Amino acid sequence: MSKTIDLNADAGESYGAWTLGDDAALFPLLSSVNIACGFHAGDPLTMQSAVALAKQHGLGIGAHPSYPDLAGFGRRVMEATPEQVYADCLYQISALSGMAQAAGSRLQHVKAHGALSNRACVHAPTAQAIAQATRDFDSRLPLMVLPSTELDIQARALGVPVVLETFPERAYLKDGRLAPRSMAGSSIHDPKEAARRAVMMVLEGLVEAVDGGFFECKVDSLCIHGDNPNAVQIAHAIRNALEDVGVTVRSFAKTDL
Amino acid sequence: MSKTIDLNADAGESYGAWTLGDDAALFPLLSSVNIACGFHAGDPLTMQSAVALAKQHGLGIGAHPSYPDLAGFGRRVMEATPEQVYADCLYQISALSGMAQAAGSRLQHVKAHGALSNRACVHAPTAQAIAQATRDFDSRLPLMVLPSTELDIQARALGVPVVLETFPERAYLKDGRLAPRSMAGSSIHDPKEAARRAVMMVLEGLVEAVDGGFFECKVDSLCIHGDNPNAVQIAHAIRNALEDVGVTVRSFAKTDL
Amino acid sequence: MSKTIDLNADAGESYGAWTLGDDAALFPLLSSVNIACGFHAGDPLTMQSAVALAKQHGLGIGAHPSYPDLAGFGRRVMEATPEQVYADCLYQISALSGMAQAAGSRLQHVKAHGALSNRACVHAPTAQAIAQATRDFDSRLPLMVLPSTELDIQARALGVPVVLETFPERAYLKDGRLAPRSMAGSSIHDPKEAARRAVMMVLEGLVEAVDGGFFECKVDSLCIHGDNPNAVQIAHAIRNALEDVGVTVRSFAKTDL
Amino acid sequence: MSKTIDLNADAGESYGAWTLGDDAALFPLLSSVNIACGFHAGDPLTMQSAVALAKQHGLGIGAHPSYPDLAGFGRRVMEATPEQVYADCLYQISALSGMAQAAGSRLQHVKAHGALSNRACVHAPTAQAIAQATRDFDSRLPLMVLPSTELDIQARALGVPVVLETFPERAYLKDGRLAPRSMAGSSIHDPKEAARRAVMMVLEGLVEAVDGGFFECKVDSLCIHGDNPNAVQIAHAIRNALEDVGVTVRSFAKTDL
Repeated sequence: MSKTIDLNADAGESYGAWTLGDDAALFPLLSSVNIACGFHAGDPLTMQSAVALAKQHGLGIGAHPSYPDLAGFGRRVMEATPEQVYADCLYQISALSGMAQAAGSRLQHVKAHGALSNRACVHAPTAQAIAQATRDFDSRLPLMVLPSTELDIQARALGVPVVLETFPERAYLKDGRLAPRSMAGSSIHDPKEAARRAVMMVLEGLVEAVDGGFFECKVDSLCIHGDNPNAVQIAHAIRNALEDVGVTVRSFAKTDL
Repeated sequence: MSKTIDLNADAGESYGAWTLGDDAALFPLLSSVNIACGFHAGDPLTMQSAVALAKQHGLGIGAHPSYPDLAGFGRRVMEATPEQVYADCLYQISALSGMAQAAGSRLQHVKAHGALSNRACVHAPTAQAIAQATRDFDSRLPLMVLPSTELDIQARALGVPVVLETFPERAYLKDGRLAPRSMAGSSIHDPKEAARRAVMMVLEGLVEAVDGGFFECKVDSLCIHGDNPNAVQIAHAIRNALEDVGVTVRSFAKTDL
Repeated sequence: MSKTIDLNADAGESYGAWTLGDDAALFPLLSSVNIACGFHAGDPLTMQSAVALAKQHGLGIGAHPSYPDLAGFGRRVMEATPEQVYADCLYQISALSGMAQAAGSRLQHVKAHGALSNRACVHAPTAQAIAQATRDFDSRLPLMVLPSTELDIQARALGVPVVLETFPERAYLKDGRLAPRSMAGSSIHDPKEAARRAVMMVLEGLVEAVDGGFFECKVDSLCIHGDNPNAVQIAHAIRNALEDVGVTVRSFAKTDL
Repeated sequence: MSKTIDLNADAGESYGAWTLGDDAALFPLLSSVNIACGFHAGDPLTMQSAVALAKQHGLGIGAHPSYPDLAGFGRRVMEATPEQVYADCLYQISALSGMAQAAGSRLQHVKAHGALSNRACVHAPTAQAIAQATRDFDSRLPLMVLPSTELDIQARALGVPVVLETFPERAYLKDGRLAPRSMAGSSIHDPKEAARRAVMMVLEGLVEAVDGGFFECKVDSLCIHGDNPNAVQIAHAIRNALEDVGVTVRSFAKTDL
């Protein structure tokens, strides 16, 4: 049986008159999308369009909940209580799920956005609130997480299925964390290099660290940053490189979890 | 078999630090509530609390979608396109439905709020957009409507089940429309008078018009305005008067539609 | 003395992570800008950048107040009361004025945006509210208006100085109104044709109507739509054509009002 | 010459249909108010009403800028950049100042709200951004600060006049910081005790610490929390007690700074 991998990107990040990202160009290259739910981007019409486009391309549809922060695009950590995070996530997951259902599709997964995700990687109560909202909405709904973070740990503790993701276009430290964005070389802009790293992640389960050596990493999904200027090129390169070595790009929901 | 009637009110109309209405006092007197979904009131935590309280009292839970207008409490008509109204309604219905589901309950109905409702009474494309969103979310989900309005007509045309509501504390014109709020006596503040009208509506199917005479009116639900200063008193008076004449207050979802 | 004309465009229409319009390319071609004030576009950082850029190019800075409608970009008429319109305008004018002042500049004019402007053209109470807010903020501050509209009339009645604007890239009806956007040919996409019309407006005070003939029109400022795909090209063509016939592009505030 | 002291409270904290605080009852007891500017509370109509009421009572009008967080009432720290804090503050200060000016009054001071204030007490870049925005708006405009905090330090470093405030109804630690709200007794609900502390603060420049002893404290203004259930009673008690010992309640702007 051939190896498969999911390829995901954030999507539906426009808002009203404003456009962000090129969903039409990116979607044909992916197998899953994380769709903004109105709190950092994605007014209802944008959500509906993104859902329709995802369905048309046969992509897995994920809810991408955020802190309520349109002006900051959800990139600013807020001192929200776990109760607020829980209710905010449940609201956003529900909203997107209903839109998917009305379009004749269904929700495949949940993935926290931006600052909410960053906070959930290190702050157990926030992580737990997100995992609980996901489970209370649907106990079989998977949460996409960075391996070994608080979000991964809390999700497993609550019995929420996890989908492990890695970033072929981001540099990692040898302790397994992402290199901070302030570090030179933290983002990988060369599509070939991103593709090389993607293949190594999928075939060998290895990530090359920027500060030397390799570490092992189980991976269920590779994430492409849709807001990068050359996101489409990078996605092309990664997808082609994977297919060249016999890996099928396919949503995790269509394989065994 | 004894006669039954549904008693509904708007609920969950607080927002963050701001409180509006007295849900705790009003809920024991009702059989259904229309819960704000975040666009005119109701941040996610408020929605969650309202859902929990409704469940505790065994009330039918309705989604109460609005134009996106927090500063105007959804009371200002907006020239939204039917596509925008559709997506906004679907988003809000979905959000509340998911919160009800996570609380171990389920959505009973949909009722448009404020200016959106007013617009849908007379503007077919807006009415159709609301009805379509309700149907696309769940084809068996009833829409609460004012009888013989465009919303009533469009809902029936799309096969959406309708729940007919009347207002015992509002004056009506003999053509069946509500007396405009600018007219003296358009609101009935005397609990006894509201109760008398409620009994007449339910037992005789008759509404007394402010400009003379009576007209016939089928009614499935009586609406109490929860934001009136004496809403709780009026609800008490109506409920007691109905029970005194042998009418059981019970959600329409628990009887035949 | 050579003839002068003001050339204005909407600006600062980005919001947080979202970009709209190309201020950097357009500003060198203009003499005045209408900067969004946060209600339809323009978070505070975007406003600050737009003000700084306008100052750098020596442009007249205008406040561009709107209905509060981010999701609809201020393009949807709202049934706001005159009191709400007044307070909303005063708030937005004040906010932009303070930002201009902090940057060492000052407010030159006020121009209503989108649906608020459309409404003010035909609805006297809305027009009066805008004019009153402008006057109460600063009685010498000019309001940019479409000639002979309710906004023009109400502004003059209140003693607010008016700046008359016309649209060289929009078709007009012979009664002086703009051709509705639904009409074929309502927008003029050919830069040469827009430039020809601009020159006729400025030199001869004539507007060519789409349904035949010409009408006279006093004009203080020509408006370019900055959100058109070829806005920069059109602005270039208009500016060049004007300069070719000896007209100087210069803000109205630098000439006699 | 008799001693004077300023008595301030937060005000204008309603929003649209929602009411918070009792401005009408509280204003006659104060000499200054900090009016919400739309980011945590205070839609433009509410701001206008609060400004008019403050003017009617002869109160000093302060701008009360916040993080942009309606749902959280500005009580949640956000990881905003100093550039964002600067622009957000400048926007809000400008908006309120213009409304005061249009009402025939003028801005007296600036005071940061809630989480923004808490952050500015300990985070120099946030403190500097607030002070800079205040200074860039008007270099003579005073900033109300808690003594010896980062905000106090940064304001002085930038040459911004400071008004030192203390809280007669809050417990203090002997190191001069407010007792955390989680500590028992951190809030003083007894009007007599609050009044006793107010008199000691003003007459002796001493604050009694909850963990023993007293510390010296220069004070220009005493702050009453307007959202406390018994805020009006406490304000009465404090004002009466001060007047009983010969202290005049008067805005700092009417004495020497």
